Amino acid sequence: MDVKERALQAHEKWGGKIEVVARCEVNSKDDLSIAYTPGVAEPCLKIKDDPSLSYTYTRRHNLVAVITDGTAVLGLGDIGPIAGMPVMEGKCALFKAFADVDAFPLCVASKDVDEIVRTIQLISGSFGGINLEDIAAPRCFEIERRLKEVCDIPVFHDDQHGTAVCCGAALLNACRLTGRKVDEIKMVVNGCGAAAIAVTKFLMFLGVKHITMVERFGIVCEGDERLNPAQQEMAKVTNRDHMTGTLADAVKGADVFFGMSAPQVLTAEMVSTMAKDPMVFAMANPVPEIWPEDAKKGGAAVVGTGRSDYPNQINNVLAFPGIFRGALDVRASDINEEMKLAAAKAIAACVSDEELNAEYIMPMAFDKKVIRSVADAVAQAARDSGVARI
Amino acid sequence: MDVKERALQAHEKWGGKIEVVARCEVNSKDDLSIAYTPGVAEPCLKIKDDPSLSYTYTRRHNLVAVITDGTAVLGLGDIGPIAGMPVMEGKCALFKAFADVDAFPLCVASKDVDEIVRTIQLISGSFGGINLEDIAAPRCFEIERRLKEVCDIPVFHDDQHGTAVCCGAALLNACRLTGRKVDEIKMVVNGCGAAAIAVTKFLMFLGVKHITMVERFGIVCEGDERLNPAQQEMAKVTNRDHMTGTLADAVKGADVFFGMSAPQVLTAEMVSTMAKDPMVFAMANPVPEIWPEDAKKGGAAVVGTGRSDYPNQINNVLAFPGIFRGALDVRASDINEEMKLAAAKAIAACVSDEELNAEYIMPMAFDKKVIRSVADAVAQAARDSGVARI
Repeated sequence: MDVKERALQAHEKWGGKIEVVARCEVNSKDDLSIAYTPGVAEPCLKIKDDPSLSYTYTRRHNLVAVITDGTAVLGLGDIGPIAGMPVMEGKCALFKAFADVDAFPLCVASKDVDEIVRTIQLISGSFGGINLEDIAAPRCFEIERRLKEVCDIPVFHDDQHGTAVCCGAALLNACRLTGRKVDEIKMVVNGCGAAAIAVTKFLMFLGVKHITMVERFGIVCEGDERLNPAQQEMAKVTNRDHMTGTLADAVKGADVFFGMSAPQVLTAEMVSTMAKDPMVFAMANPVPEIWPEDAKKGGAAVVGTGRSDYPNQINNVLAFPGIFRGALDVRASDINEEMKLAAAKAIAACVSDEELNAEYIMPMAFDKKVIRSVADAVAQAARDSGVARI
Repeated sequence: MDVKERALQAHEKWGGKIEVVARCEVNSKDDLSIAYTPGVAEPCLKIKDDPSLSYTYTRRHNLVAVITDGTAVLGLGDIGPIAGMPVMEGKCALFKAFADVDAFPLCVASKDVDEIVRTIQLISGSFGGINLEDIAAPRCFEIERRLKEVCDIPVFHDDQHGTAVCCGAALLNACRLTGRKVDEIKMVVNGCGAAAIAVTKFLMFLGVKHITMVERFGIVCEGDERLNPAQQEMAKVTNRDHMTGTLADAVKGADVFFGMSAPQVLTAEMVSTMAKDPMVFAMANPVPEIWPEDAKKGGAAVVGTGRSDYPNQINNVLAFPGIFRGALDVRASDINEEMKLAAAKAIAACVSDEELNAEYIMPMAFDKKVIRSVADAVAQAARDSGVARI
């Protein structure tokens, strides 16, 4: 039986991948008088006087909303809010299994940025954090930016930042392996969607200085009228040589390729024109920009993909559970760049110098020590950057 | 240690009264390929083609949102959305313990009817039902009415309708005990807030014809300019004799008193002016309109309150778990009057003729057979009234 049929049968059997259970007893009148009326009035009044006590007396301290509008679900595109829910439930199951975070799936039936922002803002007091998921670009940028302004809890679009953190970890270890310095490498990012832009911004924060982005129509260059506003912004801070041309032109002499674009757009021949011992990260899923075998034929020293059946899987599950665990542990008001940087370094550090090799630059997704290591690093970064509240 | 201190300690120990757990394994790459990518794409696509399959492939079929704006929490009033959350969590714990319904607590940080309605509407696709809770009148009426129009899942304001159903059950059994017919009795309802209006409307649907409502300023009478719009509506269908005066005037000769008002407003002397063997339901909590001892001194044949330490407790927990269980069991699109009537009759029928006496007209709150009996009756009523979808 193939994976599709198995998935359908499993989902029907589960009847939902999450469940809400009670943590208190309500089996007697006495139980009820404590968990419900009249006793419950006391924690209510305490929270009324000091809203931060909602973290003490309710589940908020461990609760993350996983929210989509259903417009960019997996690679399926705009399938609608309700159809996106199996993915949200899966994400919630991962949050619980990997980081003991209670995550609850919600879909918002609107494509209007104002409405989506307002809806999430109004219910945000029910949660300790918000994980945005599978929201199409460029809408996702504005939604996240505005929510970060109006919410006093972390708001994190995982498709952007979880991916960025994992790419950062991969780059750090690939540079460690090949003896490069991050601030000296020349990088090409193929794709200029939400994930590609987030990855590029984050890698710049990580120290990368020379970046060229490439869209379907060619190299992203300042002044190109085909660019959307988010791409125009990127054009101002990348490709400072104002290069034009194709992907083939962009990769010549580059140290690293990050693909967040389309299947099979990078050839072994193009890889062979890159700098010596190039690093290739081909994240299109399930079919990457170049198959690892072909990248190696072109001379790649290290190759990573989004796939679990090849070495060096760049998998968000290495990042988001630990990032939210750390943020919740210190009641962070935000997940900022410093926290993401700490997460990337912590993931990278989970591979020791002895372990590091071309087939092993990323820790395994099911290595639970990664989560704890990321969480601790993120919590410390939250404290150091002033967004921790305990 | 008193109940207040015990409740605070218990809430701190619980760290939240609900928890979100996973129903699927995500411990291996193979698990992940079924519960998450790539397998999860299949149920997504099925739901995209047929949204009703969200009830098969996600938890929606068993999931109720418990939502407040924090404006009328218990008897505490407008304490704010976040401060209302301990009550919402308690309600969710009851849903799970009594009816195996997954209920998730949400607060909406707005007092604007349009915003509250729109927020709940936009996230309603995540749930199989919506339980509104502790929302102040008259806002609660419009919020519920409009949500029922725009949502294709049940919307139920428990403070109104759960209370009404329980009062209906109490009245049915009190009439059975005292040999009265519902359509012949004279009733006084003291209070004209959300619960009182909902109870009155429902008891009219149950068959009661002669009702007088009383507000703080006296008998509710058509044309009185002190009435708010919801009360004016009630004034058109109650008190058809256009009586004016005080509560003392209203209760003279009445068969039944329902109080949803304030402590100690009914005296034994007033009860003694009611019809022979009067029925008194004094629901103000924790201090009722009249203590049962005093009502009996005045000649009451049967007395009910909201308190668990007196006989005949009118407790919503007899109603809402079974009502939602029944509605979810048949994927009802609504909880309508017929379903509420079926619930009231089912609750009443849980007390047999042999068991029925002045101290026992309501089943015990922890009698689990009540829930199943209510759920079955509600599901059948949903089918009979055309709102069941399976």
